[in-house]
Parts: sequence; C-alpha cells; structure tokens
Amino acid sequence: MFIGAQVSLYPMTTDFVGVILSGLSALDPYRNDLRIETDDISTLMVGAPGPLFDAIRDLFARVAKGPDHVAMHVTLSRGCPGEPDDPSCRCDILAVAQSQSLAERQRLALEAVTAAPLSGVEIDVQFSLYVMGSGGHMDEIYGCIAFLRDSGTFLRSKNFCTRLRGDAGPVFETLRQAFLRFGPAQGHVTIDLTASANSPSAR
Amino acid sequence: MFIGAQVSLYPMTTDFVGVILSGLSALDPYRNDLRIETDDISTLMVGAPGPLFDAIRDLFARVAKGPDHVAMHVTLSRGCPGEPDDPSCRCDILAVAQSQSLAERQRLALEAVTAAPLSGVEIDVQFSLYVMGSGGHMDEIYGCIAFLRDSGTFLRSKNFCTRLRGDAGPVFETLRQAFLRFGPAQGHVTIDLTASANSPSAR
Repeated sequence: MFIGAQVSLYPMTTDFVGVILSGLSALDPYRNDLRIETDDISTLMVGAPGPLFDAIRDLFARVAKGPDHVAMHVTLSRGCPGEPDDPSCRCDILAVAQSQSLAERQRLALEAVTAAPLSGVEIDVQFSLYVMGSGGHMDEIYGCIAFLRDSGTFLRSKNFCTRLRGDAGPVFETLRQAFLRFGPAQGHVTIDLTASANSPSAR
Repeated sequence: MFIGAQVSLYPMTTDFVGVILSGLSALDPYRNDLRIETDDISTLMVGAPGPLFDAIRDLFARVAKGPDHVAMHVTLSRGCPGEPDDPSCRCDILAVAQSQSLAERQRLALEAVTAAPLSGVEIDVQFSLYVMGSGGHMDEIYGCIAFLRDSGTFLRSKNFCTRLRGDAGPVFETLRQAFLRFGPAQGHVTIDLTASANSPSAR
C-alpha cells in the first residue's frame, strides 16, 4: 500500500512566502514519520494516515490562525496501482476494514470524530471522495455521505463535492475517516480537498 | 450526462479580490452557454466541454497575464451517477467515443492539441484523472498517460499526478482531451487540477 498527498498552500497576501514558510514549520514534528518533498507547485507527503492527516491539519491550522485569507488544496491517494508498496504507510484501520460491514465502519468513523481534539481554529472545507476500480463504488460513496451528515462537521452538499465546517480537529478527523473507512480497504481511493479560512466572502 | 466544474482562483496578493474580479470578467462571453454560480469557496460552471474548458482557460490566462503569482484549483466531473441529466452538457466527442479504439482516441486527442490556438500565456499545471466504476480503469489511465507524453505539453510524472507546462491554449486542450477521450464515454470521470503562473519558486 502507498499512501500520501500533494499539498499546496495559498495565502492571499503579498507576503505569501513568509506565511508559507511559517506554515511549513508546523510539519517539523512529523518529519521522522513522513517523507516530505516540496517543489514549485506542491509538497509531497508520504506515510501512514495517522501522521499524514495530523500534519496536514496542523499545517493549515497554523496559517489559518493568522489574519490573512488562506486556502489549501490537497490531493490524497491510497492504493494507487501505479505506486510501489511502502511499509511506512501501513495502517491498522485499513487492515481490519475488509471484514467490517458498512454500518460498523460508519459507527467507528463517528466515534473517531467525536474523540478528535479541538484545535481552536474554525475552517471551511469542500471535498470529493473517489473510489476507483469497483463496480459498486456509489454504495460506498452514499454510505460515506450518510456518515458525513451525522458527523457534526457537515455543512451542505454541492455539485461534485461536500462542504464541511467547524474546528480543524474534528473536520480533519472526518476527512481521515472518510478516506480510510469507505471504498475497498485494498482498493484505490482518492480525495480532492479544498480548505479555506478567514475568507472575506459572506459566510 | 451532467458535466461541470468547481473552480477556485488564488491570487497571492493582498489585492486578491481585485484580481479575482478582473478574472471573472473573462467569463462574460460564456455566460449564455454555462450555468455559473459563485460561493465563498468556488465557482460552479455547468455545461458542454467546449465552452467549459474555454472559459476556465480564459479565466486563468487573464489573471496569469498580471505580475502576481496566481494559482487555480478545478474539480472537473462528467457522468456522476448522483447528478441529473442536463441537455446543455451534450458533447459530440463523448457521443462517438464509445465506438472508437484507444489508439484512435489517442490520435484524435493529439490532433486537437496540435490545432489549439496559442494564448501567449505560459502556465504550469498538475492534474490527476480518475475513472470510476470500471474494472479496467488503469488501462484507460495508462492510455491517457501515453497521449500526454506525446502531447508537447508533458513536463513529468509525479506521485499521484502529471505535470504539464506550456501555453495555456495547448495545455487546456490537453486537459479537455484527457477528460473526454479516456475512460468509458458514458462513465463517471473526474479531474483534480491545479494551475500555477508567475511562481517565484525556481522552475
């Protein structure tokens, strides 16, 4: 299994370089657990979903605390057939998910979101979950949407995606649970994620 | 068939609102052909792939002409089973693609990129193409990657995505061809797309 993300941070300020560099310092606690490589468009992070989602959450929470409007885009992927197996990506949730019913996975996902620590930072998110190479992919999508509606972070459905809103802690736990508990455990699943904070547009 | 996109523009300047508003004016020629709705995170555009990709290209080319570093994220979708059929999204390319071999679709895609008009604006792009609900989805992905390598806009492969570089005209034609000619013609296909221009990072 290969698990990781391409992450891009967009501070809407002329000092965007300063904001990005300050945000990247939030990744320091995770550098032993993740492979992290930055180019001119995005930062690759490869590793297990525990440190991976924590690192992305802390990166965005750090810059969302500032006064500037900031957005982040993340492309998440697990199980892509074109990527090599990587032992550092091993995930216990995926190892047992294969034998769990949809209802059981929904229950465990809700428990995890309820237990998520608060960060004190309010954020907006919209995301799409994609399940590849499976004839019944929409059953898993609809099962995931039912979980999202009960998660406490659900805002509304939009064309092609779902809006979440709330504290960065439960919001990113909702995303991690959606990514891990829905779609085949050994299948190819991706998320297209946009986060936003401090937008001047009317909420 | 329902075809559309969620589009977000990120100007890395304190005057981001001014840059976004100037960019949105590039959509004016397309307002009769597309349904366009903006909220605080993204702009929904629904319609046929002709005006849809032209509008997204012109929007980004407009803001990329300015001096500021600007990025754009687009979530593209066709054939999502959860969306209603919409006659305005009708597409002749998809109507005939069902009966065409992979090799024939690759040839037609290359012809379209070669014929694309130049915009005079150089951009960088990275994107992922997702084909849902089909056992052989990787055959179509690898077929698309072979087209991309020959397209003249290919820069390199990255984990989870492919980098393109070049004039906005051929680059967005490459994206349109990837979106329409690969994956089942009546299936659910999406693209997760990031565009960037005027980045201060070393190219």
